[in-house]
Amino acid sequence: MISNRLKSLISNSTTIRAMFEEGKRLSKIHGEENVFDFSIGNPNVEPPENIKEVIIDILNEESPNFVHGYMHNSGYEDVRDTISTFLNKKYDLSLTGKNLVMTCGAAGGLNIIFESILNPGDEIITFSPYFGEYKNYVETFHGILTTVPTNTENFEPDLEALANAITSKTKAILINTPNNPTGAIYSKEVLRGLTHVLNVKEKELNTSIYLISDEPYREIVYDDVEVPCILKYYNNSFIAYSYSKSLSLPGERIGYVVTNSLMNDFDEMMAALNISNRVLGFVNAPSLFQRVIAKTIGSEVDVNIYKKNRDLLYNHLVSLGFTCFKPQGAFYLFPKSPIEDDKKFCEDAKQFNLLLVPGSTFGCPGHVRLAYCTSYEKIEKSLQAFDKLAALYNLK
Amino acid sequence: MISNRLKSLISNSTTIRAMFEEGKRLSKIHGEENVFDFSIGNPNVEPPENIKEVIIDILNEESPNFVHGYMHNSGYEDVRDTISTFLNKKYDLSLTGKNLVMTCGAAGGLNIIFESILNPGDEIITFSPYFGEYKNYVETFHGILTTVPTNTENFEPDLEALANAITSKTKAILINTPNNPTGAIYSKEVLRGLTHVLNVKEKELNTSIYLISDEPYREIVYDDVEVPCILKYYNNSFIAYSYSKSLSLPGERIGYVVTNSLMNDFDEMMAALNISNRVLGFVNAPSLFQRVIAKTIGSEVDVNIYKKNRDLLYNHLVSLGFTCFKPQGAFYLFPKSPIEDDKKFCEDAKQFNLLLVPGSTFGCPGHVRLAYCTSYEKIEKSLQAFDKLAALYNLK
Repeated sequence: MISNRLKSLISNSTTIRAMFEEGKRLSKIHGEENVFDFSIGNPNVEPPENIKEVIIDILNEESPNFVHGYMHNSGYEDVRDTISTFLNKKYDLSLTGKNLVMTCGAAGGLNIIFESILNPGDEIITFSPYFGEYKNYVETFHGILTTVPTNTENFEPDLEALANAITSKTKAILINTPNNPTGAIYSKEVLRGLTHVLNVKEKELNTSIYLISDEPYREIVYDDVEVPCILKYYNNSFIAYSYSKSLSLPGERIGYVVTNSLMNDFDEMMAALNISNRVLGFVNAPSLFQRVIAKTIGSEVDVNIYKKNRDLLYNHLVSLGFTCFKPQGAFYLFPKSPIEDDKKFCEDAKQFNLLLVPGSTFGCPGHVRLAYCTSYEKIEKSLQAFDKLAALYNLK
Repeated sequence: MISNRLKSLISNSTTIRAMFEEGKRLSKIHGEENVFDFSIGNPNVEPPENIKEVIIDILNEESPNFVHGYMHNSGYEDVRDTISTFLNKKYDLSLTGKNLVMTCGAAGGLNIIFESILNPGDEIITFSPYFGEYKNYVETFHGILTTVPTNTENFEPDLEALANAITSKTKAILINTPNNPTGAIYSKEVLRGLTHVLNVKEKELNTSIYLISDEPYREIVYDDVEVPCILKYYNNSFIAYSYSKSLSLPGERIGYVVTNSLMNDFDEMMAALNISNRVLGFVNAPSLFQRVIAKTIGSEVDVNIYKKNRDLLYNHLVSLGFTCFKPQGAFYLFPKSPIEDDKKFCEDAKQFNLLLVPGSTFGCPGHVRLAYCTSYEKIEKSLQAFDKLAALYNLK
């Protein structure tokens, strides 16, 4: 009596579940400290210290029915105004609170965008490798996710392939920068090239093609690389943002959708996002944490902790002979598997208590993903295991 | 470029939006204190005092990455265990944490239930009057909401009409007790009659028919009336619960779905609910408030405040000659409109700065809804306006 869709999702989700169970099994045998789980993107860096103080201040200063009560489905007006002012200063924009809907993280944001734009059979295009959940989000609204490859040297999108993939059914292009699972960041040049294709295709097909950027990693960036703001490059654009990583608050489900005022049907689109937020059952983004965001605007976790992890693990893997793009952001490495069969490689890694995710999960076989949002000491301890794994494949 | 579905939702939502704007307009002319807005179900009673202390305790005692981090998509195991133990004691059940999924309120809970059971074209039956959002929730998953009337004397369901409405496409019956908008509570006898019909129909049609109870008002009950627990009356049953009203935390989006262990395909259904929670973008119910719920288990707002409001407004309306069912729970009155056209009656009420919601919004024309979750003083002040409204219709 389960719906057909959920039945198939249950059978598909067993791979990840199996890995989770495998981690527990290995921990029981070898001790948790000897199992190196690089499979989960759960931030290990602590939230900024002011988060706790700010929560207590809000509880002391504001009325509980205001702090914990309903507000406009798009969120508190003053919170949206504060965020828009911050974004205007940071990216030289002219947003107001009316450009924002507060959401249950970026996942909630993407869902309300898709509900607002998708008719059954419409297409969303994304670039592989991509976060596997995108397919599920799009299919909830009976849309179809199609993929276009990237160049696996630097993970920049193949724009010719994009131009060929766009049809009259294409409603939006979904990008994710900084990227999960590669850590690549789309430069200004990449965005200019991408939006040029979209402008040409909009004219050719006489339609609107939206550009949606999923940006939960926008603040997790290394070596002073810039993350350009897509609102400056394309009118029909949305950003789905989350504070899950920038403030290490993933469980609190707080983020926003921000749109370009020059978007087609702007007022109607903001109304659609507002209603989608209500009808999908979010009703509003969690109220206390909306207020926390406004009071800690501009705060960020210590990204240097992730950078040290990246450098340690990246340098070691490269020294062992692995081929790997050096991530500019997020907290993942996406090296090539030494054999074509990435699932077999992940199986082999388990012998050394290493838990990795096959690239095929991200629509990019022949690679594996390592989440390095774990402790530096754990990574140090894991290096020997990687030595043994490399030896198994006679790397170098 | 907005999806067809959202386009129609935008045009439908203008009635409520218009009322909101009307309230603001009237407030500007007459002053906010002279406008009597009975349209919105936003709890005015304060959360229990221990909520604030418990939040601060949690922040002081537990690691921030634990309190604000990801956990199982169904919620923290210890939180679910604590709630199941509480429910076992209160209702003499034998649940475990495995029977629960923590959700973004009851709205989030209903959405994951519908995603888990509905194939396109499947039917959900509810009893009118009903909360208008149900139709939107069901239609997200391409289901069809059909309605069966209640007896407008006591708002008990018409079981003969129910039996006639059930088809092979019927996936579930959705009830809401205590009820919005009537305040009626389904007694044991009503539940026995209702589940008898479902048992007979399950056999006749050789299918599973679920019973879903939406219970955000379960603790808002007067005169010691009991709210029987449907899990004791029917195997294929779900409850969607919310702490929005029992703890006055509507903005925090915290609740749960609890199921009967004897349900068909129990394990698969719990997996489906878990995945739906993830895929719809909730990911998990807000983490800090999950922990708050466990630490304040059994706490409730002071229901006596709502009871005093009910008595004042109910007694006055009846004394004026209005016909009204005396609510046993929730915080709404649902009197008969003195004229058939409930929208015209609500328009007339605006002359006296009274904002009421037409019963047709709830699929029950000829009635109006008044939300009395407002201050006692405000209700006292509004009585004169009701006197004038009654005089307009020569009541009594």
